[in-house]
Order: sequence, then structure tokens, then C-alpha cells
Amino acid sequence: MIEIETRKSVEVVDLTPLVEAELKKSGVEAGICLVYTPHTTTGVIINEADPRLIQDILKLISDMAPEGAGYQHDRSDGNAHAHLRAVLLGNSASIPVEKNRLALGTWQRVLFFELDGPRPRRVFVKILADSN
Amino acid sequence: MIEIETRKSVEVVDLTPLVEAELKKSGVEAGICLVYTPHTTTGVIINEADPRLIQDILKLISDMAPEGAGYQHDRSDGNAHAHLRAVLLGNSASIPVEKNRLALGTWQRVLFFELDGPRPRRVFVKILADSN
Amino acid sequence: MIEIETRKSVEVVDLTPLVEAELKKSGVEAGICLVYTPHTTTGVIINEADPRLIQDILKLISDMAPEGAGYQHDRSDGNAHAHLRAVLLGNSASIPVEKNRLALGTWQRVLFFELDGPRPRRVFVKILADSN
Repeated sequence: MIEIETRKSVEVVDLTPLVEAELKKSGVEAGICLVYTPHTTTGVIINEADPRLIQDILKLISDMAPEGAGYQHDRSDGNAHAHLRAVLLGNSASIPVEKNRLALGTWQRVLFFELDGPRPRRVFVKILADSN
Repeated sequence: MIEIETRKSVEVVDLTPLVEAELKKSGVEAGICLVYTPHTTTGVIINEADPRLIQDILKLISDMAPEGAGYQHDRSDGNAHAHLRAVLLGNSASIPVEKNRLALGTWQRVLFFELDGPRPRRVFVKILADSN
Repeated sequence: MIEIETRKSVEVVDLTPLVEAELKKSGVEAGICLVYTPHTTTGVIINEADPRLIQDILKLISDMAPEGAGYQHDRSDGNAHAHLRAVLLGNSASIPVEKNRLALGTWQRVLFFELDGPRPRRVFVKILADSN
């Protein structure tokens, strides 16, 4: 379990070092690592951590689900846009593990998207060992 | 394996109790649960089950892939929009298992999206135990 | 590990026979198969391999993230659109394994999307056995 405190309403956190640290602790040499957010207004994806690209990704999902666009869910809560953006991104990433390391490509990072912050947030890191 | 009968062309089914029942039967205490739809015009996501939010999600994917918008696939089948919406949602969810329960967050539910019903549909629930 | 050479800037490769071959080699009877691309401008999804539908999917993601639409990331690299389309598709698929076969539905195939080719590309196939 990873705990983070986001500082802004929308923010991207590179979880890679935190996930690698959990993997190290587990001692698992080979298998699958599941990075899973239990929140409904956050996302987890794998892509490049270039800050400019992150701005592009945020603009893409904001254009697709703009804030306050007459959503039904906004009658009760005011954060339908954040749920919709979370659905577009997905809430987990599964990554192969080799030699006790995430088998990420050169440019890949595990990115956590806060879409309705700032809030304290948790992320599960579940590692299954290859029993073969 | 879960079997459901959808009743409408577009419909969302909360699979959470059915998946929890399969997990209970398996007896697996800790691991990963994969909820997987073998159909190409349905989706599986994790988010809140508020009926208003579900209307918002359905509107989002309908706006992104409206029915009959001159799709190539509609020359053979008439359901390209349903395939496209399924691609946007994804066809599986992986969820950590702790103490023989899905480690869902407070507001999270496992949601099945029928996008080209009504039809009988199946969903695989595959649970891998943590051997650590 | 699967290695492929893409031939065009945008191209879809049906990986199903290659993944099935890896599964066969592994000898795993039941479990989960993770198909994972380590690149940030490619995607992996599960859907139908009809060439017309694939054109529809490519049009959908191209309309959502058109090339050269004033992206920040294009100031350094010229391929922001490819990253964005990759984010929309996702970079992995998890598939149940039964009787040493992928438990794919009748119309399902494992589809690799090249979004910034042509290039040599790799795909990880990680298979975890059910120890129950």
C-alpha cells in the first residue's frame, strides 16, 4: 500500500520509485505487479512522464469530459467530470516483473492521476510471483 | 463463470455481488481477481454505481462513438458503435484480493456494460492466489 | 517475449497466434496471461480483427487525438498524438487461461496497435499459473 497526499485539484504523480520500492520489499523475482487505485476519481496509466506530454494528456481528457457540462451526477456531487476522466484512463496497471524489477520500457513510468483533489490517496501494489 | 441475461440494447449491471460470491467459493485469501468479458460489444470497468453517473458515462461514450456514423464495420454488421464503445471502456478489470474480499474502495463497484443487447452474456472470474 | 517489425506509421497486428504459441510453450494449463507492450506509442486491446472495424477504431482515436494539434510534447518530439492514442487504448491485456488456451470469446483477438511506426517492437507475454 502506497499513501500519497495530492496538493492540487488535478495533479499527476510518478509512482514508479514507490512501486519499485514495494517490489524490492516483496523479494519477488518474476511475476505480475498490479498497481490499483481504490478511488473513483483517480486514474493509473503507463506512459512517459514528460511534463509537456502530461499537460497534453490532461487537456485531452478535459476536452472529452469538461467540468460542469450538465452531468446528471452533478445534481448530487459536483465531480462527474472527474469520474468520467477516471473511466477514460482506467484505475489500474498490470506490469510484468523480471529480476525483481518492473519490466518497464525505456520511456515508461507508472503515472497516478489525481482528478478531484487535493486529497489523501492510497494505491494498492499487489505482486504475484510466478510459481513456474 | 457468471451468466447474465441483459434486457435492453444498452444496460449496466453491477457485478460486484456475483464476483464476491465467486471469490467466496474459491476460498482464496489474497491474490488478484480478473473479471473478463469474452464479448466484443460489452465492457467492464470499476467506478461508482450511482445511476446518474452511469447515465453520464453512457452519454460520454455515445457522444464519442454515435450510432450509425458512417462506420466501415456497419457495412457487414450494424454494431460498430458498440465495438468502439467497448474499446473505450476496456473488457476486463483486475482487482486485488485481501481476506477473501475484493479490495474495492468505498465507492467502487465492478460494472458490466451491455452495449449491443439484449443478449445472454458470460463473464469470466479468474482468481489467482498469492503464493508468497 | 514477442518481436515484431511494423511496416507503416499506423498499423494493427493480430498477436493472437503468437501469444497462443507462447502459452503452448509455457505448458500452463490454467491462470492469467498478461500481454504487455513496453512502448509508449503503441497499444494492446482485445476486440474483433475485422479490417473494417480496425479502420473504424483507428479513425476514432485519430479524431480524438489528431496529429499536430498544437500539443506541448510536440515541441520536443513530434509524436504527441501517438502517445495520446496509446493512452486511450491502454498498453496491456489480461486474459484468462483454460486448458492451455486463451479463454477468448468467439470474436476476440489480441490486437497490437502501432501508432508511431514503422519500428521494431517487442511485446511481453507473462503467464501466471493458477496454483489452486
